[in-house]
Amino acid sequence: MTHVYDDPAAFKDDVLVGFAAAYPTYVQRVPGSSGFVRAGGPLEGKVSLVLGGGSGHYPSYSGTVGTGFADGAVLGDLFASPSAEQVYRICKAAHGGAGVVMGFGNYAGDRLNFKVAADRLEAEGIDVRIVWVTDDIASASLDEQEKRRGIAGTFTVYKVAGAAAEAGLDLDGVERVMAKANAATYSFGVAFDGCTMPGADEPLFHVEPGQMDFGLGIHGEPGITSDAWMPAPALAARLVETVLAERPESADGRAAVLVNGLGATKYEELFVLFASIAPLLEQAGVTLVQPEVGELVTSLDMAGCSLSVTWLDDELEGYWTAPADTPAYRRGAATTSERFTRHLEVTEETLETPVAESSEDSRAAAEVARRAVAVLSATVEEHKDELGRLDAIAGDGDHGIGMSRGAKAATEAADASGEAGGGVQTVLAAASAAFGDKAGGTSGILWGLLLDGVGQQLGDVDRVTDEGVAHAVQSSATRLQEFSKASLGDKTMLDALFPFVDALVGAVDGGTPLAQAWRDAAVAATEAADATAALVPKIGRARPLAERSVGTPDPGAVSLALIATAIGGVLADAPDPS
Amino acid sequence: MTHVYDDPAAFKDDVLVGFAAAYPTYVQRVPGSSGFVRAGGPLEGKVSLVLGGGSGHYPSYSGTVGTGFADGAVLGDLFASPSAEQVYRICKAAHGGAGVVMGFGNYAGDRLNFKVAADRLEAEGIDVRIVWVTDDIASASLDEQEKRRGIAGTFTVYKVAGAAAEAGLDLDGVERVMAKANAATYSFGVAFDGCTMPGADEPLFHVEPGQMDFGLGIHGEPGITSDAWMPAPALAARLVETVLAERPESADGRAAVLVNGLGATKYEELFVLFASIAPLLEQAGVTLVQPEVGELVTSLDMAGCSLSVTWLDDELEGYWTAPADTPAYRRGAATTSERFTRHLEVTEETLETPVAESSEDSRAAAEVARRAVAVLSATVEEHKDELGRLDAIAGDGDHGIGMSRGAKAATEAADASGEAGGGVQTVLAAASAAFGDKAGGTSGILWGLLLDGVGQQLGDVDRVTDEGVAHAVQSSATRLQEFSKASLGDKTMLDALFPFVDALVGAVDGGTPLAQAWRDAAVAATEAADATAALVPKIGRARPLAERSVGTPDPGAVSLALIATAIGGVLADAPDPS
Repeated sequence: MTHVYDDPAAFKDDVLVGFAAAYPTYVQRVPGSSGFVRAGGPLEGKVSLVLGGGSGHYPSYSGTVGTGFADGAVLGDLFASPSAEQVYRICKAAHGGAGVVMGFGNYAGDRLNFKVAADRLEAEGIDVRIVWVTDDIASASLDEQEKRRGIAGTFTVYKVAGAAAEAGLDLDGVERVMAKANAATYSFGVAFDGCTMPGADEPLFHVEPGQMDFGLGIHGEPGITSDAWMPAPALAARLVETVLAERPESADGRAAVLVNGLGATKYEELFVLFASIAPLLEQAGVTLVQPEVGELVTSLDMAGCSLSVTWLDDELEGYWTAPADTPAYRRGAATTSERFTRHLEVTEETLETPVAESSEDSRAAAEVARRAVAVLSATVEEHKDELGRLDAIAGDGDHGIGMSRGAKAATEAADASGEAGGGVQTVLAAASAAFGDKAGGTSGILWGLLLDGVGQQLGDVDRVTDEGVAHAVQSSATRLQEFSKASLGDKTMLDALFPFVDALVGAVDGGTPLAQAWRDAAVAATEAADATAALVPKIGRARPLAERSVGTPDPGAVSLALIATAIGGVLADAPDPS
Repeated sequence: MTHVYDDPAAFKDDVLVGFAAAYPTYVQRVPGSSGFVRAGGPLEGKVSLVLGGGSGHYPSYSGTVGTGFADGAVLGDLFASPSAEQVYRICKAAHGGAGVVMGFGNYAGDRLNFKVAADRLEAEGIDVRIVWVTDDIASASLDEQEKRRGIAGTFTVYKVAGAAAEAGLDLDGVERVMAKANAATYSFGVAFDGCTMPGADEPLFHVEPGQMDFGLGIHGEPGITSDAWMPAPALAARLVETVLAERPESADGRAAVLVNGLGATKYEELFVLFASIAPLLEQAGVTLVQPEVGELVTSLDMAGCSLSVTWLDDELEGYWTAPADTPAYRRGAATTSERFTRHLEVTEETLETPVAESSEDSRAAAEVARRAVAVLSATVEEHKDELGRLDAIAGDGDHGIGMSRGAKAATEAADASGEAGGGVQTVLAAASAAFGDKAGGTSGILWGLLLDGVGQQLGDVDRVTDEGVAHAVQSSATRLQEFSKASLGDKTMLDALFPFVDALVGAVDGGTPLAQAWRDAAVAATEAADATAALVPKIGRARPLAERSVGTPDPGAVSLALIATAIGGVLADAPDPS
């Protein structure tokens, strides 16, 4: 859908006005015409590259006017060729005295209008060359390469031609390089959904839901095959195979590679695709030279993407990697600050945390801690589905799964740390980091903090006492609350944690042995967790679903009570620390 | 919709793999972690800027790792904070010995995880500063600015901080500059539609069709008002007013301005919006410093956009405009070729075509030509709706409207040229250029070519004869066919044009006076146009609708016959040229 527009009939003109306002340091409007030349005016003695075609393909054409790329851009209405008059005007304004190379994708309307404009310019004594781009494999056979349409590979061809002109090649030279780049460029695309014109309610064309249309043109021109949806690796394989099938004999393997999104396909999707494309190309002996993944030639909000490969020789590689500075495409001249010259190597060692010395006492406590973490994990596993159901009432239902992932990782990390001789602080720190890392979400980081806080209080050296454990849990719970910014009554795990802590500390300070005190405190935690059913959460996800959760206990409080109860069993079995 | 994915649970990891494969000259993976540092490793002695947050916002975070911007990027799952463990790892790998500044948008999960990581890094002796970005006006009042969320303004704040670090500021300095940039940054956004997670069938949230949700968060967090759709100028006014309402007293008017698209909103829409935003800002005394219009902070394929303004002082302006070289954002170091130094000015005169000398005879013929063009226009106007209906059967229905626009413009241009003393060639060339320019589409350029071709044969000096006119039309028709690449029987205007030309030339060559011959030829053209109803067009638009047009005459052939008939009347009234 198009949401931002005023008069649909004036859409293209409004785009031109907005573009000129945004990038005055790069471009200037040409009086009475539908396009731009470079802000400073044409460079005297330089061959001018003028690109053009229908609107709706930004950054195509206007987005690439600037140093090292185009000298002018001329835009027609949405998906319609600019008129010959407009092409004529932009070329005339862009002309620096050394001739004009016109570049556009191979569409009938563009060929007609650019040719008429070229004849008029020639009649006025301006030397003009025309190179239309024919990269789309799907639109004609290799025998009829000159009949192919121009799609995303236009970008590479234009970039190379712009760099050649900037380097000072003459008109013959720029034309030759551009034609060589075009002959070396092969694209194949896939469409997932059509695009919608401003003011229209329906897309210009449709792709059947659940289908992928291979070779569908960027204005909905027919494709070559329609297939059922396939996962990214299969899609990548199809694109790579099709493009590599036309690899010229002369290609030595170096290639400029583009994965181009057509508008509504997410950047993240393009990278997922590239994760499969890159190794396939490398396996086929292709050396990727400064690849680009992004939106370089769009088609309004069409969903789809394409792979373009331009086979490079030394000359084309030089122009492909040359600097450019335009509104939408800038490259090169990386100016690393001169202040800083030495890079530090990043290795596994960079990430190592020094292991602290530990006492025998602390290592004994670490044994108990490891069993507690293991029991924690077993408890979460047993109640995973129930916790998920509770969380699904007003959340995303992943509490059980997240806790399960975190607790398993914490158990492994605690065991590895304990076997490496870690004291109780080190073992709990390892468990904490793994819990927070693998559980994801707020529960993960909070449980990680809780374990880590207890460990920090107990240390790696001191003998662990009943009072020490109780106060360590208390101190950790207090830190947890500071981090989480939640208050009691907000329907979080804190609503079970603090009744537990108060009961535990009160009993241990009153002389009750830890195991007994913990068991009693776990009962208090369970009652408190049940009581959270009556509460309304203060902080909801996205569109708050807070009120839906009334009548259901908080899953975080419930898991805390279940875990506290289970750990009580571990402590009952543990050797008396005193 | 998400179309490209493999295992939805591994989506984020696949994105990381693809990104690393695409930009190895910019970034390297950090072993066992969910993010990147610069390819060369950290720069010794430089403050490191580490950015992070949930995935799904590319180019946020990873797309801006490089010279002059970020030193590291850490990514969580889609829309979920990275874990503290991941933040810790990336910061440790990115650390160059001069401390780390962490930057992220103000979300609870990010604040928690980055703080835990910071504590751990501090415990290991790495100095860390945290600056979270709070630019979203909609999410809290100005009194509670520190509670606001981070949205697209994060981009400017990160850019400025990255440039400050690259310039060699120490940890205090980078923290100070980043906090100043954040305090100076104000964003306000509007959502049109929600985004869809990989593997999901439904968007994560909805915006009611026909509505605009102002201030809706980039993960669907509640907005402040919902309004009916409004045109771009009204939308721009709303955004500008809201942002300018919080202009600080200290602001001198210079501002970095971003118009950011969230994913599915087209670039063209952003420019249409900017066309209204720029003048409103300028009227309010704002000086736009290197504005950017594009996708800088996305939210998967969410439809929506925002305006961000960062009020600049000399220091912030310097860092905002400083060079940067990253995968998705590059700026500065425009290397104009040293070969070319002088820019040519572009003025109205640049576009002027020299006016040819004309004879009195030719000016007399030009009078007839002007009347013919005027009658052409009146005829098209009379039959505009009918032509549109014929075209709508298998085309886009704009033949009547396009011809009407072109013919009106041609009439005006012919009159202006005639009044300026143009001969028949000059007058028809003016009519031709205007016709092709304003009519748009293929009909426009073909009619333009036809008029121009006749003029070229007649010239601006020679006396015009009956034979001259007939042969000029014939020659022009032949050139038209070469340009259009259509054949007879393809169901185009040629199917009426050639029977007309054949009849005209045959009769005139046989001695029939031009006016009589033209009238007879027009009858032939009308019969031929009617006969096109039986034909199937060879070239269709988009998904060919060719067969639907059988039974309907070609609108181009019909308009040609109508125009030929009407011009016959002009010739009958014209003075005998012989």
